[in-house]
Amino acid sequence: MQAVYNIAEICACHGITDVVLSPGSRCAPLTIAFARHPEIRVRTVPDERAAAFIGLGLAQSQRRAVALVCTSGTAGLNYAPAVAEASFQQIPLVIFTADRPPEWIDQLDGQTIRQTDLYGAHAKGSFTFPADTSHADAKWHSERIVNEAINTAQQFPAGPVQVNIPLREPFYPKAGQELRFEEVKIIREQAGTPTLPPSELTDLAQTLRRTARVLVVAGQHVFDEQLVRSLRAFAAAYQVPVVGDVIANLHQPLGGKPEVSGATSLGHQDVFLAVPDAELKADLRPEVLITFGQSLISKALKLYLREFAPRQHWHVQATGPVADTFKSLTRIIRMEPTAFFDQLLPLDKQPFITSELTAAKANSLTSVADATRVAPPPVPLGIPMQANTSEGEDAGAADASYASRWQRAEQWANGFLAGFFAAPNQPFNEFTVFYRTLQLLPEGTALHLANSMAVRYANILGLANRTAEVFANRGTSGIDGCTSTAVGAALAQPTRPVVLLTGDVAFFYDRNALWHNYPLPNLRIVLFNNHAGGIFRLIDGPRQQPELEELFETHQALSAENTSRDFGLRYFPVSTFAELESALPVFFAPEGGAALLEITTDSATNAAFFEHYRTSVRTSFS
Amino acid sequence: MQAVYNIAEICACHGITDVVLSPGSRCAPLTIAFARHPEIRVRTVPDERAAAFIGLGLAQSQRRAVALVCTSGTAGLNYAPAVAEASFQQIPLVIFTADRPPEWIDQLDGQTIRQTDLYGAHAKGSFTFPADTSHADAKWHSERIVNEAINTAQQFPAGPVQVNIPLREPFYPKAGQELRFEEVKIIREQAGTPTLPPSELTDLAQTLRRTARVLVVAGQHVFDEQLVRSLRAFAAAYQVPVVGDVIANLHQPLGGKPEVSGATSLGHQDVFLAVPDAELKADLRPEVLITFGQSLISKALKLYLREFAPRQHWHVQATGPVADTFKSLTRIIRMEPTAFFDQLLPLDKQPFITSELTAAKANSLTSVADATRVAPPPVPLGIPMQANTSEGEDAGAADASYASRWQRAEQWANGFLAGFFAAPNQPFNEFTVFYRTLQLLPEGTALHLANSMAVRYANILGLANRTAEVFANRGTSGIDGCTSTAVGAALAQPTRPVVLLTGDVAFFYDRNALWHNYPLPNLRIVLFNNHAGGIFRLIDGPRQQPELEELFETHQALSAENTSRDFGLRYFPVSTFAELESALPVFFAPEGGAALLEITTDSATNAAFFEHYRTSVRTSFS
Repeated sequence: MQAVYNIAEICACHGITDVVLSPGSRCAPLTIAFARHPEIRVRTVPDERAAAFIGLGLAQSQRRAVALVCTSGTAGLNYAPAVAEASFQQIPLVIFTADRPPEWIDQLDGQTIRQTDLYGAHAKGSFTFPADTSHADAKWHSERIVNEAINTAQQFPAGPVQVNIPLREPFYPKAGQELRFEEVKIIREQAGTPTLPPSELTDLAQTLRRTARVLVVAGQHVFDEQLVRSLRAFAAAYQVPVVGDVIANLHQPLGGKPEVSGATSLGHQDVFLAVPDAELKADLRPEVLITFGQSLISKALKLYLREFAPRQHWHVQATGPVADTFKSLTRIIRMEPTAFFDQLLPLDKQPFITSELTAAKANSLTSVADATRVAPPPVPLGIPMQANTSEGEDAGAADASYASRWQRAEQWANGFLAGFFAAPNQPFNEFTVFYRTLQLLPEGTALHLANSMAVRYANILGLANRTAEVFANRGTSGIDGCTSTAVGAALAQPTRPVVLLTGDVAFFYDRNALWHNYPLPNLRIVLFNNHAGGIFRLIDGPRQQPELEELFETHQALSAENTSRDFGLRYFPVSTFAELESALPVFFAPEGGAALLEITTDSATNAAFFEHYRTSVRTSFS
Repeated sequence: MQAVYNIAEICACHGITDVVLSPGSRCAPLTIAFARHPEIRVRTVPDERAAAFIGLGLAQSQRRAVALVCTSGTAGLNYAPAVAEASFQQIPLVIFTADRPPEWIDQLDGQTIRQTDLYGAHAKGSFTFPADTSHADAKWHSERIVNEAINTAQQFPAGPVQVNIPLREPFYPKAGQELRFEEVKIIREQAGTPTLPPSELTDLAQTLRRTARVLVVAGQHVFDEQLVRSLRAFAAAYQVPVVGDVIANLHQPLGGKPEVSGATSLGHQDVFLAVPDAELKADLRPEVLITFGQSLISKALKLYLREFAPRQHWHVQATGPVADTFKSLTRIIRMEPTAFFDQLLPLDKQPFITSELTAAKANSLTSVADATRVAPPPVPLGIPMQANTSEGEDAGAADASYASRWQRAEQWANGFLAGFFAAPNQPFNEFTVFYRTLQLLPEGTALHLANSMAVRYANILGLANRTAEVFANRGTSGIDGCTSTAVGAALAQPTRPVVLLTGDVAFFYDRNALWHNYPLPNLRIVLFNNHAGGIFRLIDGPRQQPELEELFETHQALSAENTSRDFGLRYFPVSTFAELESALPVFFAPEGGAALLEITTDSATNAAFFEHYRTSVRTSFS
């Protein structure tokens, strides 16, 4: 078993600090090795589906790989939803699945399935540990593939990998036997930084200078202060509007000072692009669209850019597959986005960049806390910025009025929303409660938005100038692990407030997120319970079918009171605005431990109010 | 969408009557088609993991294929544990996964993963529906593959198949629009019956006549009265002991009359093979071992037969892969077991068999209720049977004393258990409660045994002469869907008592089995709650590790009181023998609706008592 014990040592040498285990006998050697390693913290979670999403939440928060360990059989299949999410959200998970040795596969033994390549197209790599490591080459092989697996998981674009580990009995050390970790083989992988030849960069810069309407759209991205600073300088220099959903994490003020820096991006595209105004849409159309990051929430933005397609669409991404989200992709630029924005700045504006930092940035998971470069002063873009650059030559054909048109639309949406929610006599409904809840979010919150309505409401309302960092499982947009992901985040950063906004279907689906023995004093769950998949009542198609209530909306009867009791959550039931106002400050206060605020609303009322909102947007634009 | 609507018609023509849906928008055309088909009953279950196991329970009980429908994205991945179980337990599931059309895969759209061949090595077939059926050939293709999928799922050995269905918007018919089902192409597959040439059958019969020690071991099998009768006649003619775990379903008396027929098999192998008596083990050793069916629970039996290996091991199975469970497999006999036992009978003992019946039997999922053949009188084997055959020639070298040695061991075990549990002053512990609960099971129960301890306890105690039909997810032996499978059974046979015996880890893992809107008046859940994975305290290895409580046993704090309240189950908490005796008759009574009996025990007490049992077995044999 020494080769198996050494897995823990190799993981530790690669900087893995957290392992999520699920109970089992076949995996006992791995469990024991990780549990007894002094640099590794293990947590055990019985439901593997939840365990894997908790691991994903840990990895997402810590920005480094987390390992998972499960026993043989269907245990590992319960990881599959989180593996797919990790694959599309590019989160490094190193999955160790204990298995029977090859000779016992398909021999009708218990907890035995076909575990080789268990995750198919959703694993970034799939490795098989040798069943017998007595030969020196097999020992080398065993250490090599663990290194390969970890490196594969962490390389940009990061992702999940499986190491299947066939194990023969006995699984347990003798009573009292001490484990030792040998010196192990370590293969370190250092990411290179892709760069373009100066001539090509010059070409790109010239194109930008000659183009009047350049738009930047950011996809899902972790908050990255270096990237934000570079993007701000780029946008200011070229007079470029930047659009980002809440999951792009460009809404935060830099240095936590909203009055100074403002948001980096516009964020109300879901509002103003819902306006049926052909002139507005023509006015906003880009000639060159620059994108980076992953998915978008805003269906309005996707549909808009597919209809009002840019002449050119450049996507900036160092390596990995690139999506043609708007059907207009013309150029893939193999650079890290920060480097791209820096290097396309006019020379006198370029910040000082050390080569080490550039290399570090090539891996988007490198902690931004390490950044030490001299940064340019923040340039606010969420507020008018016409005055910021006047160098005619640098800005070239840049059309300051193009940026200001986007900003006007944003400002209109801002004003519209403020007015809309200030209106008196609103029925108690989840959209208004959502608006109010976002206003009272604690500073520095890690905000987890569940699929499907929570993330949509938040994206309509936006978080401009708020310090919340936003997470959502938008790799696959599943409801299956939203609570577990937030639980992982709460475990990773126990002193930071972690707030989950979720609907009832997502919440009860993933209740086993809370079924373990680890306290979550910083977790606050806001549960919008309309006793149904309320989203189906908001869509024309299902709303018109006789099967709406039974088969689409799917009424579900649960409230979270019993669940809160089961898991020791302080329970705040709310069903009026007055109750909400008195509950929120107590609920969000840092003391008292994990809590759940249940907003009980009526699905039909929610649908009617949201329809009122949609009508108002369409008719209020001026 | 007509081609998609027609899927429901093709399923109905193939006899599929039940579809389990999970809510989603992408799958709406399928949902609507199945919901509006007059011959199909749909049920909707939000958690796809539970939905798939509920479908598995329905299919297992109905002995015919059930269809599952889910939306795109990770929904289908949550089916994966049930798909693996269906694969190894050979249960036909036809899984329709809605998908985006191929051009939108990997384009960062929501709920989009790589769904082609989603279940890898665990699907019996994987099909892709055409994205566009406007061409006549594509229409033909669309109907053909649905036929192929259903036929593949239902062919012996049955299993799960996936049909991935790319769908473009719009998903919903217009308000008020009626659906029609066209006349569809149907390809019917008729199973042939594999037969051996008479000369080979004669050879086999001669070998058996010349062999003094022939043993039959039955693996997991549905209850099949024809098979039981044939096996009894065969065993009587050749003086062959038959051994079966509870999941072999050979313990039932025929025609529900225990006093007449007795059990077909011995069932206490877990008890008497645990006795460290070399002489006994040598006495029981077979020369020829005949097996049929699927997995065994009894680890004692597996280890015994691996050590005391037969000279020949014949496995009887019409088609499909065959396991070498005891490392001694020498012959695979490609016949249906009933036909094998019938045709190896001496001629004058062979029952009348029509060719249609033989064909029907080749598919083990054919309902046994259709059987009309003239059956031989039942021959009891679970009780002494020495007097039943005296034809010296037919029995050949058959060693009547060999069968009686197995029977003596069985009788010893029977007496031992009765005496053991009659002893006074037992602490309140789950093993004794389990014994008592089995005694009071309602007649005709569909008994669902959860992994991991419930199925082991039941197999030790046996169900000789009891009418319970036993189900357990022993294809993969997972804990992930035991409750859902029982729920599916309760839905399938609403007037039959369905009793689930389960532990706390399996129960809380799969709580979402109960999260839907369908009443389960016939379901009774007996929850053995020791607040831990108690099995780990029963095994030497983990018991000796310092991590036992935290990482192996994994204390879990939940009781089922809140869960019972959530799902409207009548709740019977029990923590003494007196409470048990007063609760069980009320709990098992058919009126009153779904109920949960929670037996709260102490894990350490359970472990000590079970150790006492093991010691007693080892020291009591005479």
